[in-house]
Amino acid sequence: MSFVEDFTWKKNLTVKSLVDSMQHLGYQSIELRNAADVIVKMKKNNAKTFLTFTSNMVTSGLRGFFAQLIKLGMADVIVTTVGGIEEDIMKAYGEKFSIGKFESDDVELHEQGINRIGNLFVKNESYMLFEDKMMEFLDKAYKKKPTWPVSELLREIGLSLDDENSILYQAAKNNVSIFCPAITDGAFGFHLYLFQQDHPDFQVDVVKDFGNILLSTTMDEKKGVIALGGSISKHHAILCTLLNGGAEYAVYLTTAHKTSGSMSGATTNEAKSWGKVKDDSDIATVIGDVTITFPLVMTHALETLSEEGLLDG
Amino acid sequence: MSFVEDFTWKKNLTVKSLVDSMQHLGYQSIELRNAADVIVKMKKNNAKTFLTFTSNMVTSGLRGFFAQLIKLGMADVIVTTVGGIEEDIMKAYGEKFSIGKFESDDVELHEQGINRIGNLFVKNESYMLFEDKMMEFLDKAYKKKPTWPVSELLREIGLSLDDENSILYQAAKNNVSIFCPAITDGAFGFHLYLFQQDHPDFQVDVVKDFGNILLSTTMDEKKGVIALGGSISKHHAILCTLLNGGAEYAVYLTTAHKTSGSMSGATTNEAKSWGKVKDDSDIATVIGDVTITFPLVMTHALETLSEEGLLDG
Amino acid sequence: MSFVEDFTWKKNLTVKSLVDSMQHLGYQSIELRNAADVIVKMKKNNAKTFLTFTSNMVTSGLRGFFAQLIKLGMADVIVTTVGGIEEDIMKAYGEKFSIGKFESDDVELHEQGINRIGNLFVKNESYMLFEDKMMEFLDKAYKKKPTWPVSELLREIGLSLDDENSILYQAAKNNVSIFCPAITDGAFGFHLYLFQQDHPDFQVDVVKDFGNILLSTTMDEKKGVIALGGSISKHHAILCTLLNGGAEYAVYLTTAHKTSGSMSGATTNEAKSWGKVKDDSDIATVIGDVTITFPLVMTHALETLSEEGLLDG
Amino acid sequence: MSFVEDFTWKKNLTVKSLVDSMQHLGYQSIELRNAADVIVKMKKNNAKTFLTFTSNMVTSGLRGFFAQLIKLGMADVIVTTVGGIEEDIMKAYGEKFSIGKFESDDVELHEQGINRIGNLFVKNESYMLFEDKMMEFLDKAYKKKPTWPVSELLREIGLSLDDENSILYQAAKNNVSIFCPAITDGAFGFHLYLFQQDHPDFQVDVVKDFGNILLSTTMDEKKGVIALGGSISKHHAILCTLLNGGAEYAVYLTTAHKTSGSMSGATTNEAKSWGKVKDDSDIATVIGDVTITFPLVMTHALETLSEEGLLDG
Repeated sequence: MSFVEDFTWKKNLTVKSLVDSMQHLGYQSIELRNAADVIVKMKKNNAKTFLTFTSNMVTSGLRGFFAQLIKLGMADVIVTTVGGIEEDIMKAYGEKFSIGKFESDDVELHEQGINRIGNLFVKNESYMLFEDKMMEFLDKAYKKKPTWPVSELLREIGLSLDDENSILYQAAKNNVSIFCPAITDGAFGFHLYLFQQDHPDFQVDVVKDFGNILLSTTMDEKKGVIALGGSISKHHAILCTLLNGGAEYAVYLTTAHKTSGSMSGATTNEAKSWGKVKDDSDIATVIGDVTITFPLVMTHALETLSEEGLLDG
Repeated sequence: MSFVEDFTWKKNLTVKSLVDSMQHLGYQSIELRNAADVIVKMKKNNAKTFLTFTSNMVTSGLRGFFAQLIKLGMADVIVTTVGGIEEDIMKAYGEKFSIGKFESDDVELHEQGINRIGNLFVKNESYMLFEDKMMEFLDKAYKKKPTWPVSELLREIGLSLDDENSILYQAAKNNVSIFCPAITDGAFGFHLYLFQQDHPDFQVDVVKDFGNILLSTTMDEKKGVIALGGSISKHHAILCTLLNGGAEYAVYLTTAHKTSGSMSGATTNEAKSWGKVKDDSDIATVIGDVTITFPLVMTHALETLSEEGLLDG
Repeated sequence: MSFVEDFTWKKNLTVKSLVDSMQHLGYQSIELRNAADVIVKMKKNNAKTFLTFTSNMVTSGLRGFFAQLIKLGMADVIVTTVGGIEEDIMKAYGEKFSIGKFESDDVELHEQGINRIGNLFVKNESYMLFEDKMMEFLDKAYKKKPTWPVSELLREIGLSLDDENSILYQAAKNNVSIFCPAITDGAFGFHLYLFQQDHPDFQVDVVKDFGNILLSTTMDEKKGVIALGGSISKHHAILCTLLNGGAEYAVYLTTAHKTSGSMSGATTNEAKSWGKVKDDSDIATVIGDVTITFPLVMTHALETLSEEGLLDG
Repeated sequence: MSFVEDFTWKKNLTVKSLVDSMQHLGYQSIELRNAADVIVKMKKNNAKTFLTFTSNMVTSGLRGFFAQLIKLGMADVIVTTVGGIEEDIMKAYGEKFSIGKFESDDVELHEQGINRIGNLFVKNESYMLFEDKMMEFLDKAYKKKPTWPVSELLREIGLSLDDENSILYQAAKNNVSIFCPAITDGAFGFHLYLFQQDHPDFQVDVVKDFGNILLSTTMDEKKGVIALGGSISKHHAILCTLLNGGAEYAVYLTTAHKTSGSMSGATTNEAKSWGKVKDDSDIATVIGDVTITFPLVMTHALETLSEEGLLDG
């Protein structure tokens, strides 16, 4: 049995040491520390790791961290939504997002050509630059072939970028596939549509790409899911591991609660219904803002793996 | 200025009367009543109405209500996720979902072949029946043509069903398009993949379908969005109205809060940044479980429209 | 086993009929319907019923409903916070609260002498009137005796009011005690303090009043708790029933989740650890805004009891 | 204007450095970093600092941290609920709380004499020891005088303890008052009641204690509120600063949202309606589990103050 132990501050406190204390604190602290342990287990047991996140997390500044995790070998498959891909590309081309307020005058922002995502601002200019780059890119890709599964298209974009902090760049360089089951649900969808108008045989093959994610792992391989937020990125990774016999490890970080039956709020307990996870020590759900919880969880896992010489790169 | 008025119960209280009282109650009650008013405005001003919902709402038993709303002319365009489409079809073929508990033994459920969605249960058998029906259906569809935009495929399925309570059936019958930007993110994705393995030229054209939703409305037409829950279904409808100059009316019902920057939690205030909505009386956000709030909001709107003779059907 | 059934709207839908449908809808709808059933059971089994609410619910316009429930014999003991008592009295003297917005300019409101509670506004004048009335009242009470247990003081105030919609009035008239364990946590605390400055032997006896709530029920009597929101009002009722052997019935309506270990978010499952509740059919927790969920739950219970001729008054 | 900057992990990352990065991350990260800055300002400007917390935070293991903060001069006035005081005393006498699960079998726990608070367990024995100690203590206190304002009683208990990690011990030693407006809302209330049965002139004077908190600061003094969670502890500190002309600084850490009009969810924006706070840089609200957010916020503030030589002790 484990006991509650009083936390006290010590000068120059490290994140590792703080998260270590959290195993003896209550409520979500304990879960947060458990999540770090599950991620270490995934790595030690060579589980094929699915990292999923929604686009607002890329907006938030976790983008460079996701790129770093790919580089460090902490993610083998990425699933995300198209907004995050768009913003990763904008940033790779030097666009900057600014920090604003939740309580802004949205009519005024609109007049200034500014789009608000929570307390962050993205300019219309960033979307215009993105459009120019994508239309150029699609021209080149189409010359190679007219039909592209989504993940192959994203890899091709990644190869064309030059930014160490880019998710697409690191994924392409490290042979990690990025899946995006709703590729048209963003500005990029509009560009694809415009391009297809001029090139009627241009096809984005989402069905083939479902095969690609299915074949990214096997029944025999151990599998882990790290799902940040909910939405289809989380659901798609769970679906793929399920069709491959279920995941052994699962970590969910989310602000949603299970009480409304949503995918965002579904807990890791449900992972047990996948048929492989039997042990509570292999799953963890942490309720809280991912921009706070994920750096804590993952820093603890990285420091632990680094100490044990188990970190790539 | 409007004042708080004490609510008291009267025998045989109708939903209309209760929601009328809510204009004088605090917090989310007021918002709920506002939402009903905005929906009445959409209808009176002939706005093209986008109704979006996530799959858990179809699971929940709101499915028949969505079908009824289509029949009554309350929704012109539907956007949803593939899980909801799958379950609509299962139910149209007679499958039943049962009511369980949030706190279930998930290991045991798995052994019994039962899948849990919150406090609802779906049997494996339901998925097996669905697979059989879809493989038959795809054979027939493929014989007509090898490439299908998603919404055309869903209309074709709808035409093959025979259930007044089915969303796909009513949509097909009433010429309402159903868009599903992530059509492969479910069991149906697996069936499409299997089918494509045997028919390599079979294509689901998501890019063309983005054109279809874009052209489902115009810059000149008034537009309204009723978004239940978040996820890509909400985002896709907003994106489409935005590319058509912005929506005049917006009602969001969700359990998510804006504080984490997620799409699920984004409020209708952001609608103002689309550039058309100027007036607070044309938007409303209600925080709460949609299985409770939506029947209240929509019943009030339907009763009001019915009294004024403005309801189709 | 119970199955999900599709909800559809019928003209002139009553609240009773809607909540009846909810037993076949998912997520919080089912819980809401269960809550109504548990309340009917409390009444049928003559349980001593503790109704608790926080002050924001009195502000909201549920005040008249609480008064009506006392009159109808649906609540035997009330536990609340002092803010709700203050506002009940202000309203009994004719003060009105107005409906504003969550997103107000709070600096401007302050300059206008307006206090904001969510999307509701209370004027400084209302507090000033309250102060005048309380100083008069305390003079009279002190002449009777210098030491007052809280619930006796509140009954004395109730007897001095003349408003059918007042909680204190109906409680006094119907011999229902109102407990308020933190009587000084509001403007009234300041008035008590001022009065004690002039009358040093004036005492508000909270210890005696703890005895009064303890003795308001017995080990042998069946007991039920209807807790709206969290805070000490919920905790105090649970504590009192616990010290009397535990409650047989418990209904919690709240927006808080259990994940942070707070009293507001504690579920009715915990009621089982009180040692009396064994059966899931005797407890229910509904997550959602109480201004929406409580009128639904309670109207269903009242209509049911009324149909069966079990309603007082 | 400030821009989003990509976070990346560096080995041996300190909490200070992580929270520094958060000023460039989105959503609640930015707010968390702002909260740390506001606390540093409180200290630099010699604001009288009110620290409030609910009892579940004492249970959680933040107790020792609260004691340390008092010792370091970071809190001048404490407001809390009685449960936290009880548990502080139990721990000072060597009782331990153990770590369990949110999803426990509560019927079984009850049979084992275990009380659950979220994922933490407290034994009945701990309450029995507490009762013995309190009955002894009340005997001694009563011999000194029959009437005790709450904060004086708590100071007297603190003086009798001998534990560096105890909140009551450090508060007594450092001349910091602890206010508890609902002193009877817990096991201690029962002990007070039993004691008064044998000593009818024994009085706990809550009215006098309201004067004590009012006089703990002045109109002229700068004031700051750090409120962890909601409930009456938060409300009481706000009320006291309001009656003294309003606070200049306010930091709220909570899991509650403002949408239901509750005190727990009220934001610091409302602080502006107190009439003193004019500048957004002096207030911050962070949504999230306090066991995670408070150690982050406060460690950043402590490291900053320590670097600048501004930390006591």
